[in-house]
Amino acid sequence: MPKPPTWVFAGCRDPKGQRAQELQNLASKHPNLVIVPLEVSDPASIKAAAARVGEQLGGSGLNLLINNAGIAKQVSLDNETLENMTQVYTTNTVGPLLLGQAFLPLLKKAAQGSPGSALSCNKAAIINMSSSAGSIEELYLWNLGHVVSYRCSKAALNMLTKCQSLGYREHGILCVALHPGWVQTDMGGSGSQKPPVTVEASVRGMLKVLSSLSEKETGTFLDWEGKVVPW
Amino acid sequence: MPKPPTWVFAGCRDPKGQRAQELQNLASKHPNLVIVPLEVSDPASIKAAAARVGEQLGGSGLNLLINNAGIAKQVSLDNETLENMTQVYTTNTVGPLLLGQAFLPLLKKAAQGSPGSALSCNKAAIINMSSSAGSIEELYLWNLGHVVSYRCSKAALNMLTKCQSLGYREHGILCVALHPGWVQTDMGGSGSQKPPVTVEASVRGMLKVLSSLSEKETGTFLDWEGKVVPW
Repeated sequence: MPKPPTWVFAGCRDPKGQRAQELQNLASKHPNLVIVPLEVSDPASIKAAAARVGEQLGGSGLNLLINNAGIAKQVSLDNETLENMTQVYTTNTVGPLLLGQAFLPLLKKAAQGSPGSALSCNKAAIINMSSSAGSIEELYLWNLGHVVSYRCSKAALNMLTKCQSLGYREHGILCVALHPGWVQTDMGGSGSQKPPVTVEASVRGMLKVLSSLSEKETGTFLDWEGKVVPW
Repeated sequence: MPKPPTWVFAGCRDPKGQRAQELQNLASKHPNLVIVPLEVSDPASIKAAAARVGEQLGGSGLNLLINNAGIAKQVSLDNETLENMTQVYTTNTVGPLLLGQAFLPLLKKAAQGSPGSALSCNKAAIINMSSSAGSIEELYLWNLGHVVSYRCSKAALNMLTKCQSLGYREHGILCVALHPGWVQTDMGGSGSQKPPVTVEASVRGMLKVLSSLSEKETGTFLDWEGKVVPW
């Protein structure tokens, strides 16, 4: 068993709210889990979260940034609007960009403090939670929902991941876009069909993928079983 | 020689302005060229332009919609902002989405009035002007400029094109994303290096590509010489 991380930070829009109850329960059981207020569509909130995390870490760096926040609107191609497009893009694409910028100093610090030059999640990494729905080649589940604003935002997030992998390579930071599978979560299960992948299977798979990531995977798009997803 | 179109409409933000002088000169030489006020980041302006075009066409349809408006900001990955990301996305990605919606009735009318079921630009088509800079695989010219907001918007535009090709297939509308080359225009030539492709070569190439498009190209990403660009 790898040793557990000193600190795990969980961003949450409303830490005191009803919908954060499960997260609060987790935190009360795990003293190394710190809940940080974070609204990823708000640049000031992102900066405040990075400052809060930096404080808690003292002089240490942050090894792993997982950009998991995301939204989707169940809308057809004919009914997409400027408002939907902008809102989904802000959360799903711009958020991860700004989070990468804000946490860059802490990620660099982790990379500098880590022996060797090979990239890994133990050294420093950004994982952007993407989706095969954002694969232009696959257009996963098109017949179940157009969700054009979501698909565009995830294709753009994949592009961002590739850009981050090139831009942050010199700092020793690995960057990967990850498709968690079509999972039985609030978001995945909101339609008429039940998703095939359990939360446990998805998380177990992703943890295995994260632990195996190296140099050659930076800038790629992988699913929860480690398979390459086409752009 | 194919016969010239009855009408050609040119969208322009400020038809009376100094920067529209060349377009005005063209229009004065070609009575079938109609300049239409259009600001693609403004949904109301898009609707007004579609109404204006519909009026001019009387009962006829529109065969070809070319989404050419686009902006870029010369910014590094570290200096991208929410404002840049949103502004570039609105013009480069959301604009083409809303234009497709607004002109859909006119495109459908053209498709219905065209004999045969095979897709082509003579029947009805949407051409989204994209860029190899928006190819996640290629990341064209990364070393000349990060332009992350631009790259993300074009990757998203490619996704939109794929979505439009599926959504509008049943209406007989062909949809293609087109890379014009790195061209000697105001935008292309704003950096330190001179672009390799002249406006004339780019336009000549694209016209040839447009005339050759058929069924099997809908939903693809091509360059001005007809070569497939990877997503």
